Amino acid sequence: MSLMTDTVARIEPAAAEWRERATQRIRTLTMPPWALGRVLDLAVDLAGMTRSLTPPVKRRCVVVMAGDHGVTEEGVSAFPREVTVQMVHNIATGGAGVNVLARQAGARVVVVDVGIAGEVGELKASGSVIARRIAPGTNNIARGPAMTREQAVQAIEAGTHTAAELSGETDVFATGEMGIGNTTASSAVVAALCGIDAARATGRGTGIDDNRLRLKVDVVRRALAVNQPDARDPIDVLSKVGGFEIGAIAGLILGAAAAHRPVVVDGFISTAGALLAQALCPAACDYMIAAHRSAEPGHEAALNQLGKAPLLDLGLRLGEGTGAALALHIVEAAARVLDEMATFEDAGVTGGGT
Amino acid sequence: MSLMTDTVARIEPAAAEWRERATQRIRTLTMPPWALGRVLDLAVDLAGMTRSLTPPVKRRCVVVMAGDHGVTEEGVSAFPREVTVQMVHNIATGGAGVNVLARQAGARVVVVDVGIAGEVGELKASGSVIARRIAPGTNNIARGPAMTREQAVQAIEAGTHTAAELSGETDVFATGEMGIGNTTASSAVVAALCGIDAARATGRGTGIDDNRLRLKVDVVRRALAVNQPDARDPIDVLSKVGGFEIGAIAGLILGAAAAHRPVVVDGFISTAGALLAQALCPAACDYMIAAHRSAEPGHEAALNQLGKAPLLDLGLRLGEGTGAALALHIVEAAARVLDEMATFEDAGVTGGGT
Repeated sequence: MSLMTDTVARIEPAAAEWRERATQRIRTLTMPPWALGRVLDLAVDLAGMTRSLTPPVKRRCVVVMAGDHGVTEEGVSAFPREVTVQMVHNIATGGAGVNVLARQAGARVVVVDVGIAGEVGELKASGSVIARRIAPGTNNIARGPAMTREQAVQAIEAGTHTAAELSGETDVFATGEMGIGNTTASSAVVAALCGIDAARATGRGTGIDDNRLRLKVDVVRRALAVNQPDARDPIDVLSKVGGFEIGAIAGLILGAAAAHRPVVVDGFISTAGALLAQALCPAACDYMIAAHRSAEPGHEAALNQLGKAPLLDLGLRLGEGTGAALALHIVEAAARVLDEMATFEDAGVTGGGT
Repeated sequence: MSLMTDTVARIEPAAAEWRERATQRIRTLTMPPWALGRVLDLAVDLAGMTRSLTPPVKRRCVVVMAGDHGVTEEGVSAFPREVTVQMVHNIATGGAGVNVLARQAGARVVVVDVGIAGEVGELKASGSVIARRIAPGTNNIARGPAMTREQAVQAIEAGTHTAAELSGETDVFATGEMGIGNTTASSAVVAALCGIDAARATGRGTGIDDNRLRLKVDVVRRALAVNQPDARDPIDVLSKVGGFEIGAIAGLILGAAAAHRPVVVDGFISTAGALLAQALCPAACDYMIAAHRSAEPGHEAALNQLGKAPLLDLGLRLGEGTGAALALHIVEAAARVLDEMATFEDAGVTGGGT
């Protein structure tokens, strides 16, 4: 059995009995019924994922999957392809948005090269970047498949492997990514898996203008027409119109779920990965926490298909894992409320009627 | 000149030149244009409030204004009036929701008795509660004015005084409150100041059922009919249909604004206080940060009148300052992004076109 199928086989649904125990405990805490709303929903989710009334959330890790995209040669991005390497350096040296927000959230940042097209050898040597490169970038999805089927499985396994390696020292995972061109591939994946039109799945990414947006929609439409991805086969979708980092995010989520670890899913690209994880194993959804509502238009359909409502809505469209890092504060809040709030009985507070 | 008028006279608008400098700096940071959305808007706001590109946000304080309400005798709340005292004890000993979330956010919690109807003497003696009681609860607004005009000014000055006392050791204020019955008074204040119907301004508070909600709407309507508050005179509105803690929150906001301190405004009751502060001094709005969208229906109209969009939308309806405590993480994130992110130049990252 491959690592991927083995990981999928080990994923159990969240524990209903721990969800129920958390719900009961919350009803005894000194506040009106369910007065912390979604923070309490999340506390119940965490209890079900971790099988605990004191869900461990202290050791946090944002995993940034990095890869390049052949489709950049179509001119879909406002940034040139070499920015992927440059930004991986920036992340590895602590200067990027995700570093700032992860530091604040008490999370470490781990960068994994799953398909960068340039040189990051010195970062690997220094241990700042984990080497799991499948190939130096995907092929141009507007002209043919992004990768082979074998490479798609390798990409997913790069993620499951990373999760397995880190889960001993990680209570909560957060997904992130870096890869110029990856909103284009994500739009194609979301369009294929959600059955929506390219125009509905495609947005401005790093902030392109109207002309380039029209081009990008056309590129996504061509990618779908040329490749005909089969929505019933997530490996087919990933290999034809995906990206290495999108597959690796799917694998990371599967690995986290198999280890009973909550995984905070960042924005649009991460959600494309989450859709693949869902298609491979629906029970993996029990471990996903949607961080935020991205400015990308296709995000809404993707979140609906996952059945997830995001925690934050701050107009973020940076990626990297920045939204997931911000959402970690809400995750910690949920765990703390469940653990630390006084009960009506302990505090001598009179309960309410309605 | 009274403390209140003196404080109002000292409030300056946020500094446009610091807002501009922050905007310029953000454009140099390694991300697509404005890719952290509202986090960046907030960073600009913080720069304008604090006159700094490294807005200080480390020393945080949630100020919980506590007071009782004569209108509880109409049966508007699911909880009996004595719960105010019980919850003040709970907050003073660290067991309430606001304590848990403030601890997580690295904020201290200060409780101020501005009008509790019961005994908290031992908490004052131990320094856990600051004594600024104006009276042991307001009068029943369904039958006459909540307080005298002099008491209304005293309530506001309890807040400005608290802000003045704490601002030397506080970088960011957050508002909170405790007072059974205070959503009823807040609904009346919001209805009066926003010119909306009692039904639109009134919600379920601690979670009352349909019957009690109908009663509550009727009570708010009677409070407005009996007292005829003058929307052009915020002291008149506060004295006739407000509450001591609502006035104190208004005063705290004015005091924070006078000291160039950001003040995170919690939910519905705090926003009623913020509306009074706005009516007394429109420039005070420049220092307000709306924490979250409350489940209370009148909150929307109040936020619109303030011209504020809330940072969070998590279905919270606990009050105490819990939403403000959660929003402090976003405030810190904004300050850190402005301060800590690498520039394109420093990181050697190629900028984008569109």
